[in-house]
Amino acid sequence: MLQTRVIQPADNAYQYPLLIKRLLLSGSRYEKTREIVYRDSVRYSYATFNERVARLANVLSAAGVKAGDTVAVMDWDSHRYLECMFAIPMIGAVLHTINIRLSPEQILFTMNHAEDKFVLVNSEFVALYQGIASQLSTVEKTLLLTDAADKHAALPNLVGEYESLLAAASPHYAFPDFDENSVATTFYTTGTTGNPKGVYFSHRQLVLHTLSMAATVGSLDSIRLMGNDDVYMPITPMFHVHAWGVPYVATMLGVKQVYPGRYEPDMLCRLIREESVTFSHCVPTILQMVLNAPTAQGHDFGGLKMIIGGSALNRSLYDLAKSRGIQLTAAYGMSETCPLISCGYLNEQLQAGSEDERTSYRIKAGIPVPLVEAAIMDDHGQFLPADGESQGELVLRAPWLTAGYFREPEKGAELWQGGWMHTGDVATLDSMGFIEIRDRIKDVIKTGGEWLSSLELEDLISRHAAVREVAVVGVPDPQWGERPFALLVLREGAALEAKGLKEHLKPFVEQGLINKWAIPSQIAFVTEIPKTSVGKLDKKRIRADIAQWQASGSTFLSTL
Amino acid sequence: MLQTRVIQPADNAYQYPLLIKRLLLSGSRYEKTREIVYRDSVRYSYATFNERVARLANVLSAAGVKAGDTVAVMDWDSHRYLECMFAIPMIGAVLHTINIRLSPEQILFTMNHAEDKFVLVNSEFVALYQGIASQLSTVEKTLLLTDAADKHAALPNLVGEYESLLAAASPHYAFPDFDENSVATTFYTTGTTGNPKGVYFSHRQLVLHTLSMAATVGSLDSIRLMGNDDVYMPITPMFHVHAWGVPYVATMLGVKQVYPGRYEPDMLCRLIREESVTFSHCVPTILQMVLNAPTAQGHDFGGLKMIIGGSALNRSLYDLAKSRGIQLTAAYGMSETCPLISCGYLNEQLQAGSEDERTSYRIKAGIPVPLVEAAIMDDHGQFLPADGESQGELVLRAPWLTAGYFREPEKGAELWQGGWMHTGDVATLDSMGFIEIRDRIKDVIKTGGEWLSSLELEDLISRHAAVREVAVVGVPDPQWGERPFALLVLREGAALEAKGLKEHLKPFVEQGLINKWAIPSQIAFVTEIPKTSVGKLDKKRIRADIAQWQASGSTFLSTL
Repeated sequence: MLQTRVIQPADNAYQYPLLIKRLLLSGSRYEKTREIVYRDSVRYSYATFNERVARLANVLSAAGVKAGDTVAVMDWDSHRYLECMFAIPMIGAVLHTINIRLSPEQILFTMNHAEDKFVLVNSEFVALYQGIASQLSTVEKTLLLTDAADKHAALPNLVGEYESLLAAASPHYAFPDFDENSVATTFYTTGTTGNPKGVYFSHRQLVLHTLSMAATVGSLDSIRLMGNDDVYMPITPMFHVHAWGVPYVATMLGVKQVYPGRYEPDMLCRLIREESVTFSHCVPTILQMVLNAPTAQGHDFGGLKMIIGGSALNRSLYDLAKSRGIQLTAAYGMSETCPLISCGYLNEQLQAGSEDERTSYRIKAGIPVPLVEAAIMDDHGQFLPADGESQGELVLRAPWLTAGYFREPEKGAELWQGGWMHTGDVATLDSMGFIEIRDRIKDVIKTGGEWLSSLELEDLISRHAAVREVAVVGVPDPQWGERPFALLVLREGAALEAKGLKEHLKPFVEQGLINKWAIPSQIAFVTEIPKTSVGKLDKKRIRADIAQWQASGSTFLSTL
Repeated sequence: MLQTRVIQPADNAYQYPLLIKRLLLSGSRYEKTREIVYRDSVRYSYATFNERVARLANVLSAAGVKAGDTVAVMDWDSHRYLECMFAIPMIGAVLHTINIRLSPEQILFTMNHAEDKFVLVNSEFVALYQGIASQLSTVEKTLLLTDAADKHAALPNLVGEYESLLAAASPHYAFPDFDENSVATTFYTTGTTGNPKGVYFSHRQLVLHTLSMAATVGSLDSIRLMGNDDVYMPITPMFHVHAWGVPYVATMLGVKQVYPGRYEPDMLCRLIREESVTFSHCVPTILQMVLNAPTAQGHDFGGLKMIIGGSALNRSLYDLAKSRGIQLTAAYGMSETCPLISCGYLNEQLQAGSEDERTSYRIKAGIPVPLVEAAIMDDHGQFLPADGESQGELVLRAPWLTAGYFREPEKGAELWQGGWMHTGDVATLDSMGFIEIRDRIKDVIKTGGEWLSSLELEDLISRHAAVREVAVVGVPDPQWGERPFALLVLREGAALEAKGLKEHLKPFVEQGLINKWAIPSQIAFVTEIPKTSVGKLDKKRIRADIAQWQASGSTFLSTL
């Protein structure tokens, strides 16, 4: 380490730890009247929010929660979840946001693995909880979250119901200082193999992520995605990377926030309209669902700005959203990265470009946001040039990457190699800093010695007007090693055959966008494509399904 | 310390220190074409800027600068200064920004006290430097900065001229990692008594200050003060708290930057017009100077947003600026605070208020920006309520306050009492979080047992149309302890006598804004009011002048 001159603090100088409680010093204290809304049932001001965070801290402390304990939440997106995102880490405990889309067995695994001590359970998950309760090895107490009039539930070791307990608690709590490297949150990410893995983030990491994201949404582009007078509603679950961390940003800035509960297209559209939502974010499949919902057909989304992440944003979805008045910007991140890494902004050069060029950059994974360092590496750990062509694994440094996987040192050491976090994504970097994700390393298709990007093929196929959804995977082939296989969902009333798809792809071969080996050998028309618990294409299951169809000689497979 | 669960990093996980080099990872890398401009003589892109920072680092390293060394700069505001703000701390050295407005004796004192080892000297300061060179006890080498064609200068131990050296250096430098608590910058603040005191800021502090300021200017208010497509020009010297730290924010975001050299009203107006400057900042006296300059009279400033700090922003200056198309926002900070503490934003309630109410909040010191904690304390160290009325000393916690004064542990311990930084300012806090500075503790006037705010009196007096500038100080009085004394500069061609001023102040007494003891007993009409090196009213000198006039029975003192 270089011998620099290190700060010498005066007697009594305060050593300021970066703690989540500090995010409440600016906007939320300042915007006394601005509202936090939950569906059509709850509406209160930031003044009340600040009080409720203190009340919740008192309730948890009285129930025996101590610094270092893990407190789990099973809930849909709500104001109560937001309160937990602050109160639980602010008393020094660890918030475990349970992925309620996992199977009961997986939920059980994550709760035991995370060593959850207290659990806050929404009444809709009481039955699920009862099913696994006897196998939970660390949970001591439960707390009920409910919108129903009936505040009773058959939960073991129930401390009580959230609202009744808050009402009886003091609205003051002297939140303590502690080490900024204390774990604040944890949650589990499901890989393609093995058990879910626990990522975790410290107070310092979440504060820095919040500040960088605020600068990103506020200043980095000509569009201001979120300022103090915007209205924010997440459509990315709060259990999934803290709804991408945006609720922390919105709270720091004192932005009006709207929480939709579970994702029902009717309710989402209604809240967007009635609460004048101007900023949101989600994965492509959720936006598809919202835009395709019957209730959304007459709806004017004009003025809504959205960040799309989790999976590649393709052109047809961008155009569809635009035709409905929604300005999309792509972003890139993953559970391991807290998640924000890059955002699809337009720089001075691109602002002056054609509409087509601008769109092509808006839908890329974007440029690194403040403090993020991105590079691409070959298989031997050598850096590759940022020339827009060289492909390698995207590797990262940022102040908010998970330091490992909880109680999985071997998997953590695989994630972190040579001081760089390895994303498992194949990408290019161009000279302006733009990242383009080509594929997951494991989803790249190797055919006849050539590498094909499944994402690129999906993008090109999705441009056909009849295609609503598409997934491309590589399937084993004795002659070519692997061959691409496409799974398609058609739009209602639309028609397409294997031959039509081939015709659609030919021009791209002629333009040199793909080579002729990229045209899938086989396709299947299905009514639904398997998705993971967070709405991504589940390529592991897709490959398994195809193997089974091929083995059984299913008749609905079409050969191109 | 609370027993929390502290982060356990995986093998090879990267421990990310918050270093200034990381500010170059986002905007500056992304905006290859956007320009940095110096007067009418230099114009280059961010791509060139990044290269020049590396070239400068190579020049300094080759000249023997090592981590921990202090490198001083004597320059007007320039692109070269901006390069120094990055390259010097990025190699682990400490940047000392010399206050070139101080007397040669004071400059000599600060350079010896800071232990400057290398000095970069603008050709305009060569004569000054020669005058003190023989008494500099630590300087080993010098480097010439010049706009002139002649690249020679009679500087002792001259390494060479900046541009020639940069041209010959490599544009690549592997900037190292080191402790984020390493000192990055230092400079001296002149108090009312004693020698200048050295404040200092670490890499961590400057990175956090930059992030919080970016969120502040980008998102905290309905006005976006600075986004990626704004054009920024400081009119606060770069030697003074790094031009309030805004150049770091602008660079992180990739904003076009304009540097004006020394402050000549003609050049400032020309740059604002020709480079389409949209965001700037300065102290009130400098804005007065610009607006009053003959060259500015026909100038349309429409669209210019400015932060005003350093001294209170009064209503008449706000209105004058507004009439010329400039939107002002007050901010508060000091050398010890890096400097940003608060900014005069309007929340939802105030946005809906009358024009008059909105203005009255825009010109206050504002609300704390993200991560800043502000409170008021009485003489016994007890917190006072945030009721908008209780007055006490403003005390602060933030991640970017100076940890002390360099080599002055006693003064540092006075600054930091009980873990709070004591500002020496008397303030009120209201329930929304707004800070209102009432006075410097030492400038408060105590008359007949009542406390008067000199700032408030100055504000009320400045509302008279004939008054261009005013300073109010307390002068000793045998009967009342102290009595207010006003020094006035009238507008050209305007007339005002003592009686007229009394008539002007009477309605404020009747409205209960001030009591009748607040009407000054004596005033003096002068052509200029003494200012400090950074453009603030020099009340120490004003008091001394008045004492001398009173002792000598000067005839131009008027009694009200």
